[in-house]
Amino acid sequence: MSLSSRAVPAFDDGDAQRSGPDRRSDRDDHDDSAVAQRLLDSAINTFGDRGFQAASVAEIARGADTTADAVYARWSDKQELFDAAFREVVERRMLLLIKNAPVPATSKLAMLGDSLLTAQRDSTRNMWIEACTQAMRDEDWRPVLSESLDVEAREISEIVEDAKNAGDIDEDLSTTAIVFLCQALGLGSHLVARSLASHRYEPAADDWSYFVGRLIRGLAPRK
Amino acid sequence: MSLSSRAVPAFDDGDAQRSGPDRRSDRDDHDDSAVAQRLLDSAINTFGDRGFQAASVAEIARGADTTADAVYARWSDKQELFDAAFREVVERRMLLLIKNAPVPATSKLAMLGDSLLTAQRDSTRNMWIEACTQAMRDEDWRPVLSESLDVEAREISEIVEDAKNAGDIDEDLSTTAIVFLCQALGLGSHLVARSLASHRYEPAADDWSYFVGRLIRGLAPRK
Repeated sequence: MSLSSRAVPAFDDGDAQRSGPDRRSDRDDHDDSAVAQRLLDSAINTFGDRGFQAASVAEIARGADTTADAVYARWSDKQELFDAAFREVVERRMLLLIKNAPVPATSKLAMLGDSLLTAQRDSTRNMWIEACTQAMRDEDWRPVLSESLDVEAREISEIVEDAKNAGDIDEDLSTTAIVFLCQALGLGSHLVARSLASHRYEPAADDWSYFVGRLIRGLAPRK
Repeated sequence: MSLSSRAVPAFDDGDAQRSGPDRRSDRDDHDDSAVAQRLLDSAINTFGDRGFQAASVAEIARGADTTADAVYARWSDKQELFDAAFREVVERRMLLLIKNAPVPATSKLAMLGDSLLTAQRDSTRNMWIEACTQAMRDEDWRPVLSESLDVEAREISEIVEDAKNAGDIDEDLSTTAIVFLCQALGLGSHLVARSLASHRYEPAADDWSYFVGRLIRGLAPRK
C-alpha cells in the first residue's frame, strides 16, 4: 500500500482524550480534525489500492493509527466513509490548480494533458476509478460520482470556451466532444499505465508533451 | 444483467447426455462446445457487470442454463474461468476487424475513434476494465492483461507506422504516445460514459466523429 504524501501528525499522547468533555479545548478540536484527516487519507489509499469490497473499516482505521470506533464515531458505515473520502479526492483534483493558473486557456489544456503521465499517478486517481467501476455496476453509486464528473466537465468546458473566445480553438468543434476526450483520458491513461507490467508502451514525458501540444494546435481555426 | 447479443442455442434435451461416453458423437462434441460457449458468454456478462469478487460460479452457470458442475468440468476455479473469458474478450476486439479493413491507415484510426462512442459499449469493455482494476491491485493479474494490452499496442503501432509511411502522420510524433492515447481512450471513454448518470456531457456521434477527424488531420506533417 502506498502511503499518502501528506505528513501524518504525531499520535496524540492520550492525555487530552482522558480530560473529558468539560476540558475540551482548541487542542482537542485540532486533534479531532487531525484524526479525521488521517482517516480520510487512509480511506483514500485503502479504497484506491484494494477496492471498496475488499477494503475493511478495521484496515482503514489501522492505516490511520486508530480504531474502527474512531471511524464509526464519524461515519455510520463503510459506504459513508467512502463517500467522504471521495469528496476529499474531488477537492484535491489537479484541475482546481490548473483552472486558475495565470496562463492562456490552451496552455491550461496542455498542462492537463502533461499531468496525465505524472502528477495523477497517485491514490486519488485510483479512487476515481474505483468510484467509476462501482457506478458502472450499481445505480446507487452514480449520483455522487456523476455530480463530480459534471463539475469537472463544467470546469473543462469553461477552459475550452475561453480558448475558443481567444481564437485558439475552432468554433466548429464541439466543446462536449473535447471535454469527453479530456475526461476519458484522465481516467483511461491511469488505468492503462497502472495495468502495464512493462513500461515499453508508455511514452517518454517529452514525447507525450510534444504530442499533446500538436493535438491542441491541430484544433486551431483553419485559415 | 445485459444478455450477450449472440443467440443462445436451445438447451439440450438431455438424451445425448445420458447416452454415455461409448455413444459420443459429433452431436455431443457440438453440444459440449455450445455449453462451453454459453458459459463463456455468461462469464463475460457476469464478470463485466458485477466484477470478479461479486460474481459467483453458480450465477455464471445459471446464466448459461447449466450448473456449477459444468464449469468445474472445464475450469478448475473462478480465476481460470475469468482468464478463459478474458481471452475470449481479447479475441472479439474491434481492432481485429478494423486492422484488416481495406482502407487507408488514418481511416482505420478514425474508425477506432468512432467506435469509442458506440460499438464498444458492450460487456466485453466491462471485462477489460475489470481486468485492469484487478491488475492495478494485484500483480498476479498483470501478466495476462499486460500481454493483451501489448498485443493491442503492437496492432495500433502498425496502423500508426503505416500512416507515417503514407505521409499522413508526422514522423516527428512519437508512435508510442499516439498508441498510449488510443488505449487510454479505449478504456477511459467507456468508464466515463458508463459512469455518467445523465448524458448531458456525452458528445453527439456526428460531433465526435468530426472532432476525431480533426484530431487525426492535425497530426499530418506540417508544410
